[in-house]
Amino acid sequence: MPGIKGNAVIGQSGGPTAVINRSFIGAIVEARKHGEILEFYGARHGIQGMLNNEYVPLFDQPDFVLQQIAKTPAAALGSIRHKPTKEECKKIFDNFKQKNVRYFFYIGGNDSAETAYLINSFAAEENYDLRVVHIPKTIDNDLLITDHCPGFGSAARFVSCAFIGDNQDNRALKGVKINIVMGRNAGFLTAASLLAKQYPKDGPHLVYIPELPFDLDKFLKDVNSTYKEHGRALVAVSEGINRQGSFNLKEDEKPDYISTWLNSMVSLDLPDKYRPKEPGKAVEMDSHGNVNLSGSSIMGDILATIVKSTLGIKRVRADTLGYPQRSFPLAISNTDAAEAYKVGVEAVIAATATNFDEGSIAIRRIDGSGEYGIETFITPLQSVQRHTKSFPEEWITSGGKIDERKFGEYIAPLVGELPMAGRFVRAIF
Amino acid sequence: MPGIKGNAVIGQSGGPTAVINRSFIGAIVEARKHGEILEFYGARHGIQGMLNNEYVPLFDQPDFVLQQIAKTPAAALGSIRHKPTKEECKKIFDNFKQKNVRYFFYIGGNDSAETAYLINSFAAEENYDLRVVHIPKTIDNDLLITDHCPGFGSAARFVSCAFIGDNQDNRALKGVKINIVMGRNAGFLTAASLLAKQYPKDGPHLVYIPELPFDLDKFLKDVNSTYKEHGRALVAVSEGINRQGSFNLKEDEKPDYISTWLNSMVSLDLPDKYRPKEPGKAVEMDSHGNVNLSGSSIMGDILATIVKSTLGIKRVRADTLGYPQRSFPLAISNTDAAEAYKVGVEAVIAATATNFDEGSIAIRRIDGSGEYGIETFITPLQSVQRHTKSFPEEWITSGGKIDERKFGEYIAPLVGELPMAGRFVRAIF
Repeated sequence: MPGIKGNAVIGQSGGPTAVINRSFIGAIVEARKHGEILEFYGARHGIQGMLNNEYVPLFDQPDFVLQQIAKTPAAALGSIRHKPTKEECKKIFDNFKQKNVRYFFYIGGNDSAETAYLINSFAAEENYDLRVVHIPKTIDNDLLITDHCPGFGSAARFVSCAFIGDNQDNRALKGVKINIVMGRNAGFLTAASLLAKQYPKDGPHLVYIPELPFDLDKFLKDVNSTYKEHGRALVAVSEGINRQGSFNLKEDEKPDYISTWLNSMVSLDLPDKYRPKEPGKAVEMDSHGNVNLSGSSIMGDILATIVKSTLGIKRVRADTLGYPQRSFPLAISNTDAAEAYKVGVEAVIAATATNFDEGSIAIRRIDGSGEYGIETFITPLQSVQRHTKSFPEEWITSGGKIDERKFGEYIAPLVGELPMAGRFVRAIF
Repeated sequence: MPGIKGNAVIGQSGGPTAVINRSFIGAIVEARKHGEILEFYGARHGIQGMLNNEYVPLFDQPDFVLQQIAKTPAAALGSIRHKPTKEECKKIFDNFKQKNVRYFFYIGGNDSAETAYLINSFAAEENYDLRVVHIPKTIDNDLLITDHCPGFGSAARFVSCAFIGDNQDNRALKGVKINIVMGRNAGFLTAASLLAKQYPKDGPHLVYIPELPFDLDKFLKDVNSTYKEHGRALVAVSEGINRQGSFNLKEDEKPDYISTWLNSMVSLDLPDKYRPKEPGKAVEMDSHGNVNLSGSSIMGDILATIVKSTLGIKRVRADTLGYPQRSFPLAISNTDAAEAYKVGVEAVIAATATNFDEGSIAIRRIDGSGEYGIETFITPLQSVQRHTKSFPEEWITSGGKIDERKFGEYIAPLVGELPMAGRFVRAIF
């Protein structure tokens, strides 16, 4: 059966990416071609808008506006971090019924797939024809089934370019430079720094991902020997490094994050007037009244301080690449942009096809010609919810390093052509 | 008298910029046209190479290599932070004499102008015909005389774009976001964030520059009222904010940096094995054995923590934009790139002209047509050394804010066309 006449709802969820709006606009533009979709409503701030009936009608927006929004980083409809309860999913479904919503598109990560799945199960219970499509996005690249996630290529492009520039900077003013990269549970984005290695001796010289166990003493040894060899060291560290290494985590075992350990060494003795009135409300405070300084960038500063104090190296700096990784407008990968748009289009094509029920749009590579190319396919919501993907174990060498050739082949087409650093010829230095 | 036949030396100094290599390559390419320059030597790591006779002969590098280096961020010859003593300047001059160096080009900030001046004064003493040109570069835009400095436009482009993306991100996931921007003594780069304001209600909603006094209570009040008004707040803070405001500093008075004050509230209790063996060598330690955590990004984290603890706002984040500001290869302003190249070319033209002795290349705008255009001129080294320029007081409104129109007219052409965010029409939200 083709989809029945009714309205569509679309929402955006989780951390924004540089291309999440491409998927959003791709879906609207495609939906205009399908007469069975009567009105397309954008939910403000994802499930929050669906719970409170805060919707934006989208079909009457002019084309040039839609195309401009497509190019704009972050979620134009607003996003949300909250994962709804079962009751909330039921309420959303009831709201959908009331508005004759027959098509529901949710752009997000694996939690969003789970939300979509729950909402769909209420529809199934009542035999209500609702077609639910999860549209993938995440800069972490950690969704199951799909070859890669829209949003990742652009974030990786930012990270690669930051390291290309920083490698030059670190050559010019030698020292140890540590960059903290996003990706709490998957090392893809941190590993993207490896694309900055264009010439022998280029950094990053050391790369630490959450999948492999992190040992501070080993780290210091690595940094020391790199510094001795090159007179400098450029280091990529995932925000999610942990003691066990997520490859070794047992089911339901939580990682011991290094950031948590390092943060516990720091105390912030605020003047009285700046201490929290109600302990624990917005910040945590210990029994001495010291506030927990829980910023994201402190791990880099502590690592840099420990490198200084134990290795005696003077020029040690740390940067935490921060939100520009997911929202910088000048580092969008063309491939990522096109694919993000495509998954939005394909979501609508899937939803309006005969006998469709629910699914997530996934990407696979087309093999054969040697040229990079992809096609999309549909995978059940359950196959992408709950669990996430790690950096593949087969891309780790027996020496415990990232296999740069294997990973390079995977990531290069997603990031696009990178600016090539110039270097004197005849090996001057 | 035109310049006599001899060799040329060029060096790069201070913090790299995204376009400092354009000035470097512009000088080499121009020098090839001037027969009186026999060989062009690049000093490795600025004065370090000049002191130790570590030079790279540049004339035999292929054109395509030079053009590729020109496009590459950071200092291809290597840079240095050390300011030489008088004795070192004398030694450099002696080395120059020995190598028949008659042309000396030094790319850097005001300290580099002073170094160039000192070296030139030794030449003058001995009546040795040395022609010395300072080529300006700084992301801080704080050199005297010149309208603006090569390197600033690209750094400003990075900052503007980071805020354009972050403004969208902050709209999507509401909260308080604080971004710490480079520029210890001048507010130009922090103020560049204002270019991100494309629509009413866009951030940055608050901008704090070193020229104006910073008061933490006032800051908290500002953040609170912005948050109440918009449900969010995007805040630009210069790393150099201080109590007095540099407009109010007396001659030789040092600013009380807020970062120093905030850092003093933090202590880092390192496990014994990571404490420095020799106190004070690479890190500072207090009498309790606590190490001073002096990273650049901690100010943002502390400000964010104080916003949380005093205002009770839950979602408060801070980023420190870090080295990508000066080295990101995808945020280079075309205008900045062309002008950086031009000042390198003009330096050689000046040095080889009749009766030239010494000077710094400066930029002024050509008035008249309304179109942006510049020309260069020569200003004595003494006029740009030692002192630096602040954000102009006449661009501060009586309410103590940056005059966005006046500053915008100044900065817009330097940064180039910026990506325009898309926004729904008919004021949906």
